[in-house]
Amino acid sequence: MNDREARVALNRLGEPGDVRMSGLVAELGAERVYTLLRDEREITGIYTDVAQRLRGLDPAADLAQADARGIRFVCPGDEEWPSGLDALSGCEPIYRRGGAPLGLWVRGPLSLREACARAVSVVGSRSATTYGVDVASAIAAHVAGQGFCVVSGAAFGIDQAAHRGAIAAPGPTMAVLACGVDRAYPAAHRPLLDYLADNGLVVSEVPVGCAPTRLRFLSRNRLIAALAQGTVVVEAAVRSGALNTASWTVRLSRVLMGVPGPVTSAPSEGVHELIRSGGATLVTRGEDVLELVAPAGEHLTAPHRGPMRPRDRLSGLDQQVLDAVPLAQAVPAHSIARTAGLGARVVVSTLSRLRGGGFVEHDEAGWRLGPAALDASLTPSPRRPA
Amino acid sequence: MNDREARVALNRLGEPGDVRMSGLVAELGAERVYTLLRDEREITGIYTDVAQRLRGLDPAADLAQADARGIRFVCPGDEEWPSGLDALSGCEPIYRRGGAPLGLWVRGPLSLREACARAVSVVGSRSATTYGVDVASAIAAHVAGQGFCVVSGAAFGIDQAAHRGAIAAPGPTMAVLACGVDRAYPAAHRPLLDYLADNGLVVSEVPVGCAPTRLRFLSRNRLIAALAQGTVVVEAAVRSGALNTASWTVRLSRVLMGVPGPVTSAPSEGVHELIRSGGATLVTRGEDVLELVAPAGEHLTAPHRGPMRPRDRLSGLDQQVLDAVPLAQAVPAHSIARTAGLGARVVVSTLSRLRGGGFVEHDEAGWRLGPAALDASLTPSPRRPA
Repeated sequence: MNDREARVALNRLGEPGDVRMSGLVAELGAERVYTLLRDEREITGIYTDVAQRLRGLDPAADLAQADARGIRFVCPGDEEWPSGLDALSGCEPIYRRGGAPLGLWVRGPLSLREACARAVSVVGSRSATTYGVDVASAIAAHVAGQGFCVVSGAAFGIDQAAHRGAIAAPGPTMAVLACGVDRAYPAAHRPLLDYLADNGLVVSEVPVGCAPTRLRFLSRNRLIAALAQGTVVVEAAVRSGALNTASWTVRLSRVLMGVPGPVTSAPSEGVHELIRSGGATLVTRGEDVLELVAPAGEHLTAPHRGPMRPRDRLSGLDQQVLDAVPLAQAVPAHSIARTAGLGARVVVSTLSRLRGGGFVEHDEAGWRLGPAALDASLTPSPRRPA
Repeated sequence: MNDREARVALNRLGEPGDVRMSGLVAELGAERVYTLLRDEREITGIYTDVAQRLRGLDPAADLAQADARGIRFVCPGDEEWPSGLDALSGCEPIYRRGGAPLGLWVRGPLSLREACARAVSVVGSRSATTYGVDVASAIAAHVAGQGFCVVSGAAFGIDQAAHRGAIAAPGPTMAVLACGVDRAYPAAHRPLLDYLADNGLVVSEVPVGCAPTRLRFLSRNRLIAALAQGTVVVEAAVRSGALNTASWTVRLSRVLMGVPGPVTSAPSEGVHELIRSGGATLVTRGEDVLELVAPAGEHLTAPHRGPMRPRDRLSGLDQQVLDAVPLAQAVPAHSIARTAGLGARVVVSTLSRLRGGGFVEHDEAGWRLGPAALDASLTPSPRRPA
């Protein structure tokens, strides 16, 4: 039995993400661990747990059957193995789950390694709002359109919106499941998963044919975090599973991002906590995400700027006089000169010039702001150089 | 002419926040600066600017007339002077405006110093959404209800909502104006300002009778930041004046807070930029604000927690077995035992116990999750101890 077959066998023996198993394999190698267990040797309590599963193991047959269904097993040493997964070995477990996977079962035409070289995970609540679904879809479409693979979990709500956004871009996307890659959970997402198997990737640590359990979802979440350079959380209530993925992202020192929403919306509460605590950076659009996850300098965003206003094009002197014209009440020119701290003559000639541009108006009572100045009168730009 | 009268005179001579004037007064004292200017001595270019205003100055009459209208002048050395303003002297100016004010014109029954000892500024766009107005009002009501004075600018939108929230609490609130405290800008807020003059505070650096200008709004913003321990920005478009107040808050090393909103809402864009850049801490409710601005430990918030679920009360063994029950498909007990890594006998007895609580169901096909477990099946709590 070679290393690949031993990994397939151990993958079926243990539960995905069991830290004892991944630790033993890292220490002794997969073939040695398999041989010890096959010989009914107890190691760190694993034998007792897996004894019943040892009977009838046939990894070579597993691989052949999977291959016949277009499913491959990708493990360390393979050209397609994504190096980002190895970082999991250095992380403390959560719920006794952690470590690098022994291998991944994969369907789909993309190279797993290439997809993960530029990848962003987009996760969130199953009970998402239309707001969350729209934003997740728009962010996924933007990053996928720039060639980044959108990684998610194929669940209802935000996950589904993320995959769909990427598909519409069109761009690469990958579903990471808590059941075998041949299964559809939820069943309603069979067409989505079939599409991803034909055009993107469907990935799981759980052997072919296996059903999802709660622990398998927890183990799966660490893979979503580890397969990408960063994770965007879009709507996550306070106890959402997406926060488990967020926690893994931080443990892996990957970039954690959160999309805010109304403070009155329960599905945004968990995200707001992540941002408030400093764990996540606030992002509002795909450009923000790429600026954070792309190689430095590659996707710099232009700062948000309001539209140019007519007054922005005025000279310094013109602005100084205009700033001294009262907002609501006409006053004589000498009063404006005093407020501006300028001589009367220059103020009068400046006011005449500003009147030509519609910035000020003049009548018997004096000078007041004109239509071109009014929209901006109370909202100075904080970005204008002082 | 004493120090107070000299300050009243210089206050009328210079524009509010003119850094040259505040710098000179800090260096030479108000009486000396006034004497120099009165004697037509040029100092740092100020004399030329203010020469026209020197004629007809009568600070004693200004003070008497103000007093007759229930307006007082509060300046350094007075018992009512809020010490937080002094920090402005150490700040770099913006738009050539900065420095501590020479004094403030004040209406209202509260002590300015006491109000500012526990104060939170709440600012934002005039063109606010109903969402922003509701959140600003709720936050103001909470902090005012805890005895913190809500400081704002009496403008339309967020400012108005902040004052109203505080009034409804009921709690203290203060308007800081860009015109004389006897004037109402906007005119529609005359009743609000009258109410504040009777029950709270109306404050301005601009002499009584003077009209607002754009520069006076900029100068006013630094006072809003300096009069409180922290500033909450609720909705601010990218070029909102509230961002100018935010900038002063950071310069003063006070606590800057931002309320997020939908990323699709333009009035929230400026706030999201503040949070994203790390300048502002995200807050969603009054409790968050008090935790940040109150003396350490005085207003600690409980962490956001989801509601308890039935499964939270299960023992460790019960949870371990339950976590191994597939979500969608009935399976025999020995399959669950393998997934859980437990012996068959203990799993069968645990399943029977779980069945009593409605966590699992049993039929000919085997065991599946029951109604008590289903709501929580995919959303593990990230806060449960590992």
